[in-house]
Amino acid sequence: MTTSEPDRLSLTLAALADPTRRAILARLSQGEASVTELAEPFKPMSLPAISKHLKVLEKAGLISQRREAQWRPCRLEPAPLKSVDEWLERYRRFYEASFDSLDEYLRQIQKPETWPRDPGQTSAPPGSTQ
Amino acid sequence: MTTSEPDRLSLTLAALADPTRRAILARLSQGEASVTELAEPFKPMSLPAISKHLKVLEKAGLISQRREAQWRPCRLEPAPLKSVDEWLERYRRFYEASFDSLDEYLRQIQKPETWPRDPGQTSAPPGSTQ
Repeated sequence: MTTSEPDRLSLTLAALADPTRRAILARLSQGEASVTELAEPFKPMSLPAISKHLKVLEKAGLISQRREAQWRPCRLEPAPLKSVDEWLERYRRFYEASFDSLDEYLRQIQKPETWPRDPGQTSAPPGSTQ
Repeated sequence: MTTSEPDRLSLTLAALADPTRRAILARLSQGEASVTELAEPFKPMSLPAISKHLKVLEKAGLISQRREAQWRPCRLEPAPLKSVDEWLERYRRFYEASFDSLDEYLRQIQKPETWPRDPGQTSAPPGSTQ
């Protein structure tokens, strides 16, 4: 892998690193749209500027464009997003673990004392008003 | 939001759009490491080049570096990765949907006939040898 030729995942992440391009994907997540339709919410951004963003997304495989006579709709291609998701997998335990700890902490401070765990029983601890 | 000042998520995605920086994060997912330790597997890449990558990661909030006299360990900061994960959420149904269909298809071709669903009963369909 050379730095002059970016790998697939780098290409995807670089394409996603722009709020306009992410907004275009969000629009396409609701269905196919023409370049003119995609450009509409970004006025006064020029059509060539939008086309440039679309080219970046297309090169990354995040969108495709059917070429018909009057109507050239763009559509979302989710495969590269799945690769990002898979790459994230090994890091998920870090932020999910922090949340588990926070949950645990919140559970602890909401209880006056720590009772032995018995998931089968729903009876309230002594002194509880429940 | 201006294009000259990238938003947080764009900063994160741009930082991740490089195989060396992703490899540094992978190393840090195994524990804290010094800059020298992080640079080791990337030889002959220079230490200043690695430091530049670390600055990009630090600016995106993906790593932090404790500053001590002899030992300045870097550590992974998972919060920005969680934001990427959350951003992916709305797209997940696109690639997961394809897998659901495949699962459904595989279930269909493995059954000789379709039986009415009754999750409460475990009895085998007529003709089964179970």
